[in-house]
Amino acid sequence: MKKGIAEAIGTFVLVLFGTGTAVLGNGIEGIGALGIAMAFGLSIIAMAYTIGTVSGSHVNPAVSIAMFVNKRITAAELVHYLVGQFAGATLGTLVLKYILTSSNLAITNLGQNGFGALTVTGAFLVELILTFVFILVIIIVTGKKGNVQFAGLVIGFTLVLIHLLGIPLTGTSVNPARSFGPALFAGGEALSQLWLFIVAPIIGGALAAIVGKCIFETEKESKSA
Amino acid sequence: MKKGIAEAIGTFVLVLFGTGTAVLGNGIEGIGALGIAMAFGLSIIAMAYTIGTVSGSHVNPAVSIAMFVNKRITAAELVHYLVGQFAGATLGTLVLKYILTSSNLAITNLGQNGFGALTVTGAFLVELILTFVFILVIIIVTGKKGNVQFAGLVIGFTLVLIHLLGIPLTGTSVNPARSFGPALFAGGEALSQLWLFIVAPIIGGALAAIVGKCIFETEKESKSA
Amino acid sequence: MKKGIAEAIGTFVLVLFGTGTAVLGNGIEGIGALGIAMAFGLSIIAMAYTIGTVSGSHVNPAVSIAMFVNKRITAAELVHYLVGQFAGATLGTLVLKYILTSSNLAITNLGQNGFGALTVTGAFLVELILTFVFILVIIIVTGKKGNVQFAGLVIGFTLVLIHLLGIPLTGTSVNPARSFGPALFAGGEALSQLWLFIVAPIIGGALAAIVGKCIFETEKESKSA
Amino acid sequence: MKKGIAEAIGTFVLVLFGTGTAVLGNGIEGIGALGIAMAFGLSIIAMAYTIGTVSGSHVNPAVSIAMFVNKRITAAELVHYLVGQFAGATLGTLVLKYILTSSNLAITNLGQNGFGALTVTGAFLVELILTFVFILVIIIVTGKKGNVQFAGLVIGFTLVLIHLLGIPLTGTSVNPARSFGPALFAGGEALSQLWLFIVAPIIGGALAAIVGKCIFETEKESKSA
Repeated sequence: MKKGIAEAIGTFVLVLFGTGTAVLGNGIEGIGALGIAMAFGLSIIAMAYTIGTVSGSHVNPAVSIAMFVNKRITAAELVHYLVGQFAGATLGTLVLKYILTSSNLAITNLGQNGFGALTVTGAFLVELILTFVFILVIIIVTGKKGNVQFAGLVIGFTLVLIHLLGIPLTGTSVNPARSFGPALFAGGEALSQLWLFIVAPIIGGALAAIVGKCIFETEKESKSA
Repeated sequence: MKKGIAEAIGTFVLVLFGTGTAVLGNGIEGIGALGIAMAFGLSIIAMAYTIGTVSGSHVNPAVSIAMFVNKRITAAELVHYLVGQFAGATLGTLVLKYILTSSNLAITNLGQNGFGALTVTGAFLVELILTFVFILVIIIVTGKKGNVQFAGLVIGFTLVLIHLLGIPLTGTSVNPARSFGPALFAGGEALSQLWLFIVAPIIGGALAAIVGKCIFETEKESKSA
Repeated sequence: MKKGIAEAIGTFVLVLFGTGTAVLGNGIEGIGALGIAMAFGLSIIAMAYTIGTVSGSHVNPAVSIAMFVNKRITAAELVHYLVGQFAGATLGTLVLKYILTSSNLAITNLGQNGFGALTVTGAFLVELILTFVFILVIIIVTGKKGNVQFAGLVIGFTLVLIHLLGIPLTGTSVNPARSFGPALFAGGEALSQLWLFIVAPIIGGALAAIVGKCIFETEKESKSA
Repeated sequence: MKKGIAEAIGTFVLVLFGTGTAVLGNGIEGIGALGIAMAFGLSIIAMAYTIGTVSGSHVNPAVSIAMFVNKRITAAELVHYLVGQFAGATLGTLVLKYILTSSNLAITNLGQNGFGALTVTGAFLVELILTFVFILVIIIVTGKKGNVQFAGLVIGFTLVLIHLLGIPLTGTSVNPARSFGPALFAGGEALSQLWLFIVAPIIGGALAAIVGKCIFETEKESKSA
């Protein structure tokens, strides 16, 4: 139960600060794509060393599913994590929407993801690769030979990196819950394209779990080659 | 006594470098909102690993009150901390004012906070949430299950994050002393709106102390669930 | 074998994310040279703490050759590393090319290096010095008196630094594989100037290995002065 | 002797990469003041964990003098450090000058410091305070109660901070050697104003050494209050 609450708080922070910076920072000189990338990455650093003490701070359904694939969490835990993550993401977008409504800023964009300038296949490949790299880093650095102390910094900086490449392409999801919250309230194209930002990250993450286990011996039960 | 001096030095650095960068960086290409956010965050990193060895480097009345709520400091210590923090912040603004006066730059802005484009309710909610997240991170990462070594980095990076979202909204206070210094000398709207940047951060921080204690078991006397 | 695969994955990430950000970030406000520099540096941080557990994460032929000069890897290992690195770099550029083709963005630049505004001698000296500094840092921080825990962060931040100076000059190679991938597909000037971005980094790196060994006593067999 | 060489290499890197980024990054979108600040700070991080293993990586006469004031180095060592630092800085500017000459870039600026928009008194106060804060951080974090592991990161990030405030004012020296190299070759105003960037940092640093010793008990021989 506490793990679900922790995940809800963490995903709330990621979505509110990440998409909020994307939306509000658009017109502010000096935030730009680098600032938005840092907002997502620093949210992960902030959460990893705090709510991570309770839940491990997945704050991302694709991460929780990858952890389940490698048997680090049970099916029952997975359900708690997913409920917390989608609830937190929805609350994050709701609060952002309220802040925008209570301002005189003419912003209706909620930081939703989209195919952008890419074909469906291109967008799918981009999200697949971005999530594969992101979750491969997570699986290894939190794994058997990983580095518990530095894991939060490394994962956060990796999410900055993922956004530097991905913002001009799909806006960068790599996280079904992060795409779900904004799409739910933005509707339209964001909602009709949402499936890709759920399916591609889950597949990319599951592949990363398997590669991590087989090549980088991340799991305790694996044998050394 | 030494703790009060340490807090005064730390808050002086935060206010001088944070608001100074905000004021001077306005016209300099490449500082922008990200550079300002980093100035506040890096001030915290610099102070955490230095004056933190004496006082813990709160440099923020809302943090000290949250620490008092969770009984990490006594009422007598709280008074020393608050006096040091408001004195340091005032000195920080004074020095910034002197630097501006001794230059030929036509800058009168002192980096004060304001409601910006938001309604009072909106601004209150924003400062409440920003401070809640900031101080929840502080309370957990310096708490029972926290990480003493990385705490300074994590808190500093979190303050960068808080500013990335908050700069376009209220300018980001989350710290009554940081708002007090500039408002005292800027007067006008900054002074008439100052109450919000004192009340909202204190409430947000106290809530974070309670959530930290109850859900994340941050205090030594708390029992595991 | 696993080391070769690890190096291929790592170099793939470095080239795809580094050159991809350089290419795509050109028109996006706020990425600019700082964002590109961070993409390269954060790739190193991400890889150091992950694939580094298997191969040490050289992801750079000049680094592997420097390690060979100081006898940290054997000739047979060196071959595996080089094959993995050039294969990974080529794949990185291929994927970038596919992403660009499957988009409606009119980008043909692949992030290749070039002499830029410099004479051949100037470009050679720049790459020699940049690589010397980069690999001196690597050799010392991973050496006898180094710091295993912080090495990944330090090397990654150093690569950010190297790019801040080098982007306006040669675009910054310091890595034959990173130059090889884009040059192979871009052809023309990138291909005819490729030799410099292979030779200069290798010489700079070998010099760094020797200076590290002699002055900074980085190798286990060296005697203290 | 090795300490002198180490300091020369470290100061060479700081001056070449710091002032080089300042000079070359001027016209490159996205480097700006933040990128320049990071170049100086990341130079310190790179050097702290590497040449620091031999010399402690002062790379700054004001730091070495502060260390001498608190008896951490002897007078004989101080001389070696100073010779190395001024030699390294001069070489750094020489190499930068050569790179600029061998390019078709029309840049004659060498990254020299100056009073900028400030009066002499204002510039003196700014450099005094900037250096006081910078060296107070160094003295404490490398002192008795400091944190050896994180010291390099903390000092580097502090130098980023110092530059964010100081670039729009004096360009930020806080380091007599860093001002000496460019002034020597730029001549004119840079040379006639050089005294301030030697005297103010030394005084600021010495004050920081004393405050560190008396209030923050940084030295082994000091008694606890």
